[in-house]
Amino acid sequence: MSNTACSSAINDSITYKVAQLVEEMRASAPLVHCLTNTVVNEITANVLLAAGAAPAMVIHEEETFPFAQIANGLLINVGTLSIPTNKAIRSAIQGAHAANTPWVLDPVAVGGLVPRTKFAKELRSLRPTVIRGNASEIIALAGFGEGGRGTDTTERVETAIQPAQKLAHHYGCIVAISGERDVVVSTDRITWVHGGHPVMTKITGMGCSLGALTAAYVGSYKTKSPTTETLHYATVAAHLHVKAAGTLASQTSILPGSFKVAFLDALSSLTPPTIQDNASCSE
Amino acid sequence: MSNTACSSAINDSITYKVAQLVEEMRASAPLVHCLTNTVVNEITANVLLAAGAAPAMVIHEEETFPFAQIANGLLINVGTLSIPTNKAIRSAIQGAHAANTPWVLDPVAVGGLVPRTKFAKELRSLRPTVIRGNASEIIALAGFGEGGRGTDTTERVETAIQPAQKLAHHYGCIVAISGERDVVVSTDRITWVHGGHPVMTKITGMGCSLGALTAAYVGSYKTKSPTTETLHYATVAAHLHVKAAGTLASQTSILPGSFKVAFLDALSSLTPPTIQDNASCSE
Amino acid sequence: MSNTACSSAINDSITYKVAQLVEEMRASAPLVHCLTNTVVNEITANVLLAAGAAPAMVIHEEETFPFAQIANGLLINVGTLSIPTNKAIRSAIQGAHAANTPWVLDPVAVGGLVPRTKFAKELRSLRPTVIRGNASEIIALAGFGEGGRGTDTTERVETAIQPAQKLAHHYGCIVAISGERDVVVSTDRITWVHGGHPVMTKITGMGCSLGALTAAYVGSYKTKSPTTETLHYATVAAHLHVKAAGTLASQTSILPGSFKVAFLDALSSLTPPTIQDNASCSE
Repeated sequence: MSNTACSSAINDSITYKVAQLVEEMRASAPLVHCLTNTVVNEITANVLLAAGAAPAMVIHEEETFPFAQIANGLLINVGTLSIPTNKAIRSAIQGAHAANTPWVLDPVAVGGLVPRTKFAKELRSLRPTVIRGNASEIIALAGFGEGGRGTDTTERVETAIQPAQKLAHHYGCIVAISGERDVVVSTDRITWVHGGHPVMTKITGMGCSLGALTAAYVGSYKTKSPTTETLHYATVAAHLHVKAAGTLASQTSILPGSFKVAFLDALSSLTPPTIQDNASCSE
Repeated sequence: MSNTACSSAINDSITYKVAQLVEEMRASAPLVHCLTNTVVNEITANVLLAAGAAPAMVIHEEETFPFAQIANGLLINVGTLSIPTNKAIRSAIQGAHAANTPWVLDPVAVGGLVPRTKFAKELRSLRPTVIRGNASEIIALAGFGEGGRGTDTTERVETAIQPAQKLAHHYGCIVAISGERDVVVSTDRITWVHGGHPVMTKITGMGCSLGALTAAYVGSYKTKSPTTETLHYATVAAHLHVKAAGTLASQTSILPGSFKVAFLDALSSLTPPTIQDNASCSE
Repeated sequence: MSNTACSSAINDSITYKVAQLVEEMRASAPLVHCLTNTVVNEITANVLLAAGAAPAMVIHEEETFPFAQIANGLLINVGTLSIPTNKAIRSAIQGAHAANTPWVLDPVAVGGLVPRTKFAKELRSLRPTVIRGNASEIIALAGFGEGGRGTDTTERVETAIQPAQKLAHHYGCIVAISGERDVVVSTDRITWVHGGHPVMTKITGMGCSLGALTAAYVGSYKTKSPTTETLHYATVAAHLHVKAAGTLASQTSILPGSFKVAFLDALSSLTPPTIQDNASCSE
């Protein structure tokens, strides 16, 4: 019992600490350069705006190199690739490297589909700051499995922890796995994030926009030479923000149309104390 | 009078039978591969998710062939064609043929515009399971007219029945015509679907996402060697589901912003009895 | 004091006159051909539909020339350019010229990014009817500055008036600058538009869809050989309609999810008297 009480006190303290990061992120209003799939552009922009960041979907292959340098964070999502898109993505990552812009890789539906899987494996070698996906995607990207069907996962989050650790060690990145509980993995630590509601699987772009928000949180440290620990908890903070918004919105409605409206409202209105009321971390 | 009573009893029984299909569709959670236009990707995904299906917008020309084989249903919408899109569409249809995946053709704005009209006429020969459009589009695709302006129809549904029957006979497909009342036509029967609200013409993607939902309903029979009659009523069920959601949502609001929210909620919450309360079929 | 009273009476009369134009626009239900960026296609279509116009996002390079002739108004937005898009845009503008279709140029994020800035400067020479942007974009397009970051402006509206006048004189167009207050500039006059709410900066596509609505308002005069004064006040009317919808919606909610819903509702429900209650013009 004393162990549990102690662990619970530690976890309260982690949740407290992480929940404060929303204010730092909002204060810096990070500009997030998004190269994402054609389904979720609008919801991604609205999630970033509601949360307090600034989106910019710059996709022209001659514009991505300079823009990724100006941006605070960069999101690369492989959901709807094409030949010009791949070129624009490579240039964006070069821009991110040139200016130390933190960047997030979202390996949407990687696994069975050959072109995106090959491309995502190329990208994982280009030092992403964070890789964010569901369990099937993380397992497939680490080379352990065939992935799910489309954006649905066919694996439990727990099963993806070892593959995530392999990715973290091999590529020096943070790995975030989304599921009923989310988990953020880096070389030294594993942090669970609790909250949200199952209706979130019934709205397109919830995972993709979480990838973008992760780029906002890690991007707000662009000029501060962040440690892995700092980037780990920035990633946790993005997930905590979204889980809390999901919990809070589910109190308004658990039907998908009105939930989505309430979710955007919640992203905007949440503060550190109300984030702690609606979601939590554990280690 | 007795005729009317009889006909009404038959129609109640058809409505009853079709309304049950929502539960079969949801139980199979059909994976719907969508190649749709760039305006409606998000609403289409959200309509499928709310209704109980699983969307996947896989558009890369090397991914559409294998993915259309995995999917339960395929939607081809010609709203925003381009050279790579056309290639991806042809591969997707080949994949659908290779794996007996039912597929739906949505001939958006076919008629006056030459490239899409030519392409849609090529596609109608590739054995679509269902063709779904408004009256102008169906008339134009059957070769009888010049189409409407954009996505608006300039013709009444009734005028399109003969062209729909021509398409059904010639290409062995089901043809669904959307309008104030919808009508589903196949070689042996014509079924009308009643319900909805005029505000539905003030929200983009209502017709396009109905095409995707039709792919979900017919796709849920992929592995069951369905008869034309089965596919006919699966098509009717998609239309009944949407009409009922429109009627129900219009009781919350007839203004377009809040109607759309209520419409997605209704797609998710409707059950066979509430579908029957809000829409009906007749033959 | 008498001056103020006089000026206020004049401004009431301008607001009254402009507010009536919503009914003319709705009565003509202008078909608006939109070549816009991939982020805002859906919200743009929904804004046009809610306001009373008819959107059509025709983007194929062989379809834009004929369709821009059929359409009442044309919108060109350079937010997400690509090589095929640029070709389609040039053909659309040729179509607009061939049929006297009024067209609106939205120079999104023009300034620092070379390809779009070069292309927007090419387009400004092709006689746009209206140029609509934020202060940074207008200043950059007129050749006075480097633009903002993404879609955010880093300049005040006032600072852009002189550059706007330069554009208006040099290219014979109306120039509209969006900001806390909007201002519409043409060779002979400057009209301010007051209303709206800061939450409008937290929803993607508010500016882009205003560009499309401007194309609807000026497009409704396509066949009437409009004077510059007529086009000036049509542009003001689009801005007044949106500002009034913003004010009205902010009375429902100032959180971004529910504000957006209420904004679409308001665009649809506003009438000349309620527009005057929620926004105003001054000269």
